[in-house]
Amino acid sequence: MTISSAQSFPAFADYVTPYGGLDKIDAFDYLDYLKTHEDAPRKEGKVILVTADTPLKASRGEGKTTTTIALIDALRARGVDAAAVLRQPSMGITAAGSKGGASGGGKASLSQAELADWGLTGEMARIADAQNLLVAFCEKAVDEGVLDRIFIPRVSETPSRSLRSIGVDGGKLPERVVITPACELMQIVVLSRSAQELADRIGSILAGSKEGKPIAVRDFVDVDRIVRVVGNAVQPAYMETAEGSPVYIHCGPFANVSLGIPGLSAVDLACSLHDLVVVEAGYGADAGAQKWLDIAARESGAQWPAAAVVVTRASTWRDDPALQWRYPFHVRRLESLGIPTFPLINLWAGEDDQVPALRRTASDLGFRDPIIGNLFRDGGEGIKAQLDDFISASGPASASISDSGHGFGSDTPHASHRGMPLLDKVAWTIENAYGVPADRIRRKEGFDESLAIARNLAQQAGIALDDLALCAIKSPATMTDDDSAFEGERTVTLKKVSINAGSGVVSVNLTTSLTTPMPKIV
Amino acid sequence: MTISSAQSFPAFADYVTPYGGLDKIDAFDYLDYLKTHEDAPRKEGKVILVTADTPLKASRGEGKTTTTIALIDALRARGVDAAAVLRQPSMGITAAGSKGGASGGGKASLSQAELADWGLTGEMARIADAQNLLVAFCEKAVDEGVLDRIFIPRVSETPSRSLRSIGVDGGKLPERVVITPACELMQIVVLSRSAQELADRIGSILAGSKEGKPIAVRDFVDVDRIVRVVGNAVQPAYMETAEGSPVYIHCGPFANVSLGIPGLSAVDLACSLHDLVVVEAGYGADAGAQKWLDIAARESGAQWPAAAVVVTRASTWRDDPALQWRYPFHVRRLESLGIPTFPLINLWAGEDDQVPALRRTASDLGFRDPIIGNLFRDGGEGIKAQLDDFISASGPASASISDSGHGFGSDTPHASHRGMPLLDKVAWTIENAYGVPADRIRRKEGFDESLAIARNLAQQAGIALDDLALCAIKSPATMTDDDSAFEGERTVTLKKVSINAGSGVVSVNLTTSLTTPMPKIV
Repeated sequence: MTISSAQSFPAFADYVTPYGGLDKIDAFDYLDYLKTHEDAPRKEGKVILVTADTPLKASRGEGKTTTTIALIDALRARGVDAAAVLRQPSMGITAAGSKGGASGGGKASLSQAELADWGLTGEMARIADAQNLLVAFCEKAVDEGVLDRIFIPRVSETPSRSLRSIGVDGGKLPERVVITPACELMQIVVLSRSAQELADRIGSILAGSKEGKPIAVRDFVDVDRIVRVVGNAVQPAYMETAEGSPVYIHCGPFANVSLGIPGLSAVDLACSLHDLVVVEAGYGADAGAQKWLDIAARESGAQWPAAAVVVTRASTWRDDPALQWRYPFHVRRLESLGIPTFPLINLWAGEDDQVPALRRTASDLGFRDPIIGNLFRDGGEGIKAQLDDFISASGPASASISDSGHGFGSDTPHASHRGMPLLDKVAWTIENAYGVPADRIRRKEGFDESLAIARNLAQQAGIALDDLALCAIKSPATMTDDDSAFEGERTVTLKKVSINAGSGVVSVNLTTSLTTPMPKIV
Repeated sequence: MTISSAQSFPAFADYVTPYGGLDKIDAFDYLDYLKTHEDAPRKEGKVILVTADTPLKASRGEGKTTTTIALIDALRARGVDAAAVLRQPSMGITAAGSKGGASGGGKASLSQAELADWGLTGEMARIADAQNLLVAFCEKAVDEGVLDRIFIPRVSETPSRSLRSIGVDGGKLPERVVITPACELMQIVVLSRSAQELADRIGSILAGSKEGKPIAVRDFVDVDRIVRVVGNAVQPAYMETAEGSPVYIHCGPFANVSLGIPGLSAVDLACSLHDLVVVEAGYGADAGAQKWLDIAARESGAQWPAAAVVVTRASTWRDDPALQWRYPFHVRRLESLGIPTFPLINLWAGEDDQVPALRRTASDLGFRDPIIGNLFRDGGEGIKAQLDDFISASGPASASISDSGHGFGSDTPHASHRGMPLLDKVAWTIENAYGVPADRIRRKEGFDESLAIARNLAQQAGIALDDLALCAIKSPATMTDDDSAFEGERTVTLKKVSINAGSGVVSVNLTTSLTTPMPKIV
């Protein structure tokens, strides 16, 4: 395999290492190289966000990966230098067979889907090893009197009921176990853009406390050991679609309980090599897209998207009438943020005859003309001819599209919320991303105490709680306590607050979510 | 990096995949190729076993890996086409800093030690994922009424006190956790020589039982899913010594609690490419060497070694006079098996002046003239001139050593013990490998019950218990209940019997050993 764009960027080849049938790219070092070599050729690719309607069930996707793959195949067939950045699927679920992989399907597939689906790009296992090693250091620190409480959770990628309740010394000192994709170390790998940033963030993780005083990892662990075990997990993998389009795979499933976006260094890398970079974020627009916009873009300097695609299946609007409001809500919300947003309807077998009706519905809703295709069957070929408006809206994507550009991206206000009081930030997010006003936010018993503990912890650790990025922990299948309720009756209940000082995130639990390993394979 | 021997064996290059700075070799497929292409050029390398004196402490090695590296560097400097096969170190211990890596040291080092030491050859993580996924399937099977007891232990590579006592549903159904290198799936990867054998063995693992009746993995799990997660863990990694000598790294530390030998497919592969293949087995001769001889060679068709090297430090004989009997015991035992055995004394700084005394002691003990060097400081250069007898005894190793050959290897009786009653096999091993006669074997309370349970389980599963290979589970630092006791008073106590139907091993616990993750980083 050769990375096509390596020809245009001669220095790039030095940062590529073959890795078991695919390539791993040393994104940190290449981005450093670009920074220190201002004359080095590069592109300034625009980010296109692929998101979806909120799924009816957590295990049922709408086809975002398939769409992402079809979209770049179609764009490249139109002469646009497009690439995709995908997240690593969770092996624990894929291998157990309870969910399809996250590598597309049919004609819109990766050429080496099995390497992604079965965990062979490697980062999940490296991150799990490093995070569990941190726990081992914490247990040692307990024995040595450095800690009397451990904050860092152990991780498991496979479903496990036995690990849901464990503790040191017969349970006297409880330990938490979370799924690998949701752990702080994964968030750190997602957000870091340099080796130094990675090490700094790992050192800043709050490992536990001693007599109530928080202790950071760097206070008692040789951070370099953890960095070495993380190893090449920081390197995005490169593979191609079956049609030969470039795809970068890096980190981060599960936008319901964590960031759910690919590594920012992988996205930066792709933007330096291609004109349009299609980034897939997890679950519905209320999950992955919300996190891309409000964490990656607002707080971590990632690009505000030049355009967005909201994927759904043709049948979704019919399956549950009480939930039909969500799809137009997502499309309108993204448009209201100045992001040209294209509905994309992924047809299943036998649904071709619905196209005129689907276009009518979209038009009635005031949407841009939707892109519609059976992407599994036809791949990019099925939507190639429908992309004129999309390419226009995405801005001057390549020399071959000369006079198109009306990209909203760079002109849109998308200021940081850093410093906004935490509860205001929560209210802002719930109102904007889920459509529930502040007066219908409830607090579960225990929330205030949890908030006080977090506030105290932040203060003791010298962290400004209001400067952390807000990460909503929620069910992937709902935005509110009951999405089927009437609009004026929908509520959101705040349940718990927790801090990840290394990733710079404050998590607030909303609707029911599972950060522990699934109790069993379903 | 290029594999030097690839030039002599043109087909070989097709089986090599670059993998993150080193190479992975598809040994299964290449061995298949050799089998089906009788005319394809190949070598028939002889195996040299590198073992050691029993260490005084588990965490203190004698320098086997350093010796192995120095030895092949020296042999190659003498014109012999030698290669080494090493085991993957345990990242859980190396990364925690409680033990050196297993990648040599000083001038006798691997060129990419960090890739081995930090788990980047990948098999440990793959095997852990696959084994834990099996546990997840077992938990599901409990819910579905397929199992009411789980046999397969969860694994962890990092030390962990919290994982030492866990269970499903609040502990009602206990689960075991073992260290990854000791798990059955690791044994299976070590022993398998083809993809089919791997899948068959995985399918044969006894997952648990239902109303006392054992259930195999293949009865309720799609074995292919597990094979896919194991993935490239079956592929040995190729790297080189700092001097450029070829080294294959594959599987299996911890000969105290498991096999502790490298993958047999990696050894077969190396033998097809080189004349002398130096294989390192774990801990002392009572651990790794015993397992190579009595499991790999007697029961799994691996080569009876053409010669052996028993490594010790110059100071070992002095450190504890009560344990001085062990080193000559090991050397004489290997010689008694028809294996030319060379003492190798690994000098530390400041010990050069002891060489004459060390040679006298060896001569007094009736040893072959020992090979002595400060291998950390001098590498292979330090022993190159001392290898005449060793090269002679190892047989006609290459065209450049024309008239040397008196290899004992192929003429020595080393028959299988298959079918020998289990307790006879245990007595035979204890007498031969630890020097304790049958009348000084004790049985701990509970052993007989454990034996009866294993016998019953084997019978119900249709397995002949006496056909399984015996794997002794023991302390790495002792062969008997008290190695410091007088010879005529040493005893061995049998504690527990367990069966691994997939790897075809029956384990008997003897002296104290730790198969669970270490309680903490030490």
